[in-house]
Amino acid sequence: MKKIPVILDCDPGHDDAVAIVLAARSPEIELVGITCVAGNVEVEQTAANALKVCGLAGLRTVPVFKGMAQPLLNELLTAEHIHGKSGLDGAELPPTDLTVQPTHAVDFLIEKIFTFPHEMTIIAIGPLTNIAMAILREPRITELTKQIVLMGGAMGMGNVTPSAEFNIYVDPEAARIVFNSGIPLTMIGLDVTHQVLVSRDIIEQIRQNGTSLAHTFASLLAWYNASLNALSGELAAMHDPCAVAMVCDPSLIATELMRVDIETRGEFTRGRTVCARGFSAGRMPNARVAVGINAPRVWKMLIERLR
Amino acid sequence: MKKIPVILDCDPGHDDAVAIVLAARSPEIELVGITCVAGNVEVEQTAANALKVCGLAGLRTVPVFKGMAQPLLNELLTAEHIHGKSGLDGAELPPTDLTVQPTHAVDFLIEKIFTFPHEMTIIAIGPLTNIAMAILREPRITELTKQIVLMGGAMGMGNVTPSAEFNIYVDPEAARIVFNSGIPLTMIGLDVTHQVLVSRDIIEQIRQNGTSLAHTFASLLAWYNASLNALSGELAAMHDPCAVAMVCDPSLIATELMRVDIETRGEFTRGRTVCARGFSAGRMPNARVAVGINAPRVWKMLIERLR
Amino acid sequence: MKKIPVILDCDPGHDDAVAIVLAARSPEIELVGITCVAGNVEVEQTAANALKVCGLAGLRTVPVFKGMAQPLLNELLTAEHIHGKSGLDGAELPPTDLTVQPTHAVDFLIEKIFTFPHEMTIIAIGPLTNIAMAILREPRITELTKQIVLMGGAMGMGNVTPSAEFNIYVDPEAARIVFNSGIPLTMIGLDVTHQVLVSRDIIEQIRQNGTSLAHTFASLLAWYNASLNALSGELAAMHDPCAVAMVCDPSLIATELMRVDIETRGEFTRGRTVCARGFSAGRMPNARVAVGINAPRVWKMLIERLR
Amino acid sequence: MKKIPVILDCDPGHDDAVAIVLAARSPEIELVGITCVAGNVEVEQTAANALKVCGLAGLRTVPVFKGMAQPLLNELLTAEHIHGKSGLDGAELPPTDLTVQPTHAVDFLIEKIFTFPHEMTIIAIGPLTNIAMAILREPRITELTKQIVLMGGAMGMGNVTPSAEFNIYVDPEAARIVFNSGIPLTMIGLDVTHQVLVSRDIIEQIRQNGTSLAHTFASLLAWYNASLNALSGELAAMHDPCAVAMVCDPSLIATELMRVDIETRGEFTRGRTVCARGFSAGRMPNARVAVGINAPRVWKMLIERLR
Repeated sequence: MKKIPVILDCDPGHDDAVAIVLAARSPEIELVGITCVAGNVEVEQTAANALKVCGLAGLRTVPVFKGMAQPLLNELLTAEHIHGKSGLDGAELPPTDLTVQPTHAVDFLIEKIFTFPHEMTIIAIGPLTNIAMAILREPRITELTKQIVLMGGAMGMGNVTPSAEFNIYVDPEAARIVFNSGIPLTMIGLDVTHQVLVSRDIIEQIRQNGTSLAHTFASLLAWYNASLNALSGELAAMHDPCAVAMVCDPSLIATELMRVDIETRGEFTRGRTVCARGFSAGRMPNARVAVGINAPRVWKMLIERLR
Repeated sequence: MKKIPVILDCDPGHDDAVAIVLAARSPEIELVGITCVAGNVEVEQTAANALKVCGLAGLRTVPVFKGMAQPLLNELLTAEHIHGKSGLDGAELPPTDLTVQPTHAVDFLIEKIFTFPHEMTIIAIGPLTNIAMAILREPRITELTKQIVLMGGAMGMGNVTPSAEFNIYVDPEAARIVFNSGIPLTMIGLDVTHQVLVSRDIIEQIRQNGTSLAHTFASLLAWYNASLNALSGELAAMHDPCAVAMVCDPSLIATELMRVDIETRGEFTRGRTVCARGFSAGRMPNARVAVGINAPRVWKMLIERLR
Repeated sequence: MKKIPVILDCDPGHDDAVAIVLAARSPEIELVGITCVAGNVEVEQTAANALKVCGLAGLRTVPVFKGMAQPLLNELLTAEHIHGKSGLDGAELPPTDLTVQPTHAVDFLIEKIFTFPHEMTIIAIGPLTNIAMAILREPRITELTKQIVLMGGAMGMGNVTPSAEFNIYVDPEAARIVFNSGIPLTMIGLDVTHQVLVSRDIIEQIRQNGTSLAHTFASLLAWYNASLNALSGELAAMHDPCAVAMVCDPSLIATELMRVDIETRGEFTRGRTVCARGFSAGRMPNARVAVGINAPRVWKMLIERLR
Repeated sequence: MKKIPVILDCDPGHDDAVAIVLAARSPEIELVGITCVAGNVEVEQTAANALKVCGLAGLRTVPVFKGMAQPLLNELLTAEHIHGKSGLDGAELPPTDLTVQPTHAVDFLIEKIFTFPHEMTIIAIGPLTNIAMAILREPRITELTKQIVLMGGAMGMGNVTPSAEFNIYVDPEAARIVFNSGIPLTMIGLDVTHQVLVSRDIIEQIRQNGTSLAHTFASLLAWYNASLNALSGELAAMHDPCAVAMVCDPSLIATELMRVDIETRGEFTRGRTVCARGFSAGRMPNARVAVGINAPRVWKMLIERLR
């Protein structure tokens, strides 16, 4: 079977780190490159983190690119209170000799979409600033991109505000550009990712893989879990890998075709993904929205492929 | 046990009609008066409907008042596509000699809250225009009203727009005044009322009560159900009576204390009840929000009391 | 010539005090009542100030009414930094035995508009909360009111924010209700009132009237001028009396028919009176907007009638 | 004297055409390049028009670049009702063999700002999409650009809506990025450009220059004037050349340092340049705003340099 060419746009982040390794090790995917954006931490740090994860996992041929340092209009909001100051607190990742590519992430995205016309899948698991900038700069990619599968948004409650999920909230204008672009879109939101919870049992299973990689990830996830727990009393969720899992095996996540509008104004609702099933008469649906997930099978895939 | 003095603020409407009879026949409640507001239909018609329902149910001593004809800022949006041109399509209610009181509903609300200091419960099952006007006109009632139990809003999806429920959407500014008033508030939203569905079986049970009242209500609900079904393919929900049921027996509905803000701006979210559980640091909760309902027991109460 | 029946709605305030005396002493006007609203200071204080001004000026038969204590949606913003803590700092007005009427200002407005159908002029020189509440409570007054002449708004720059003038900014929703009511409206904004400046020479002319009243007003205006000057380096303007002067002699102020919309949202523009001359195709004009003023003749009228 | 290196960012447009020739012929300016953006007409057409104007005026060495085809978030709004379908209706400009450069306008802007560190002046006379994209893509140019002199905005009334001027209204988000960028900024708005009116007498003076170029421009301006006059009954204004004139001779236009915020929300005020003189306590000024112009001297410069 032909592999699916994928660019992974990310802001590592603990769950981004898992998503990188999952994408690189999934036989269904050809990981063409990793583009980094400001989000969980500053872009300098997300790029450095992506390189370290690649070093740790032996991904020496996957190029890593640095992209946008700021949202289009907002000041940057980071999530260091969740991921720690480094963005990957909880384990000391070994230094790496891998370096960031000289090309800007936005240019790389455009170039590769032209190289793989109608074939490229973008998995976007950070704020959508890089993708939006690529669309603004070269609108023809909206015709040439096969699909975007993104982690972000929520039909129900958000996680930064009652209305908004972090990735969308950080750059609502970018989200609006992406959702209105016409590129086929799958939105994997909190409604399903909050079902893929990090438990002590699962961390133990990962650790028992025995490899050094597994040990490191077990430590990262234990720290991430403790961090979330201290903040909210809840277990951490494996948000970002869900988007990668969906590309590997679409049967893991059930979706419905909806109209999704991004609220950029609002006094209490900025960054909300307003999802409509039936009643937006006259407005075309623009996204498949995740409404169900087989969490045990997602964890099975993750644990196996993190070995 | 002492009865709970209640003013029922409504905009009949099929489910309002059920709520009126339920309130009048519930031994827990002393129905002090019925105030009508524009909503499902124009206020002239909601007042006429309330009188007809009182006539049909033999409620000759419950005074009926006419209130606000328009929302504070919006143009009025009605729901004649759901409730029919009369607001109570589906059965010919007999004409009545009952007449509307000369006092304005807003003045009656203020007067009675002063008559029953710290004792009056307002059950609000239409747009909140009357209640908001009473608060604006006489702010001291915010100290003197025991509680407001209202049907309106949603934590999840709305029913007029993806974001907003009808009663709040019709007059978001009024809702904002009421939610920010400091009066103890219980919000019974779509999250629970959508579980109290009108089925053919339930209509049959009501009809088998055998009384003329039961026959009429069975016909009304059958029409209402068919109307909803034609619009959305779904069963109709008994929204409004849930608020009355909650006052009669608080064990029927589970609530959580939350911060609820009313979005009045927003491009896609006007009229949304933004509900926050834990993360609105520093903002005080202002409402108990319904999160669960025992629908079979609600129906049992309704069927028994509609006899 | 028949006198024009006028209700003066105000929030004294130094320039309101001048406006009260001007209205009471103008032979063109029959001052039916004074209604007070929260604005420059709290409503308790604006009512007390109106009474003191009436006492000082011997207006023992003009009834004074207390109205709304809060804007419709906003928290109240006062202007004590300009008018002092009492709202009338700068002269000790003698205590008065005059008292506020028991009727609420909003009820008085409605009642008198019905008493003088198609004849009543409302001169509104504070936030428009009382007038908006009267319109909400009894929409028929929109057909029965002859006209509203209001001091508020600006085509050019505001005085509270770069976009908004104080009276409109304090209660933009009320302003919206009034401007959209259909009542014939004249807006006397900063564009003209900023031309009627309090100079040392003018204060001297007033003082030389020699009466006790003139002395007091000279002191009030000197204080007001010093207050403005300390804040902004500019001379104070006689905003409110311009609206009264316009009713006495419409030739003093040139107006143009415009469409005026009240911005209630906006990140930087809340409370702006958006004035359109020609290009709001399809939208009906709703106000005559003051575009020019004969300031010397206004001062002449003021000085003469303050004697 | 050293010439001022300038990039002219434009959307020709009649007044843009005049601005191009003025910039190219002004001895104070070294015109490094012309970048085109969508605005008065589509970007394909603005680039074609810029080339034709260069051809007509013999500017064979000034490179022309094509930039953004769409605003950041808005749909594009053009002004074909004013400038005609071609954007330069009124004279048949001769075809030219000049062609657009292969580099994107945004890349050219960034590159040249790095080539002339702290020296480059950008004269922006269309929507600010190109400039905003350059800032987003390479934030370091905010430190390296000497200044932006832009035609756009208004302290007083707008020309597309009562609140907004065309160049800002077409892309308010871009304007916001530019005004908040920290680059030294001069805003030449309608408040002054509306004083530089195209009269029959001036068109005659241009025509009497006798050259073919002068003849063409006289025809263009006559058409432009007739177009405006048919729409609004007013004379056309020479908006864009004012920004060029300001760079050549700053004594032509008086400015004040202000805080300018771009309203992107608002129901009636989207695209407004909210200008504050003194009262935005705590917020730093970010632009010099034109408050006065010597229109006769501007016309003298224009007529002489169009010879």
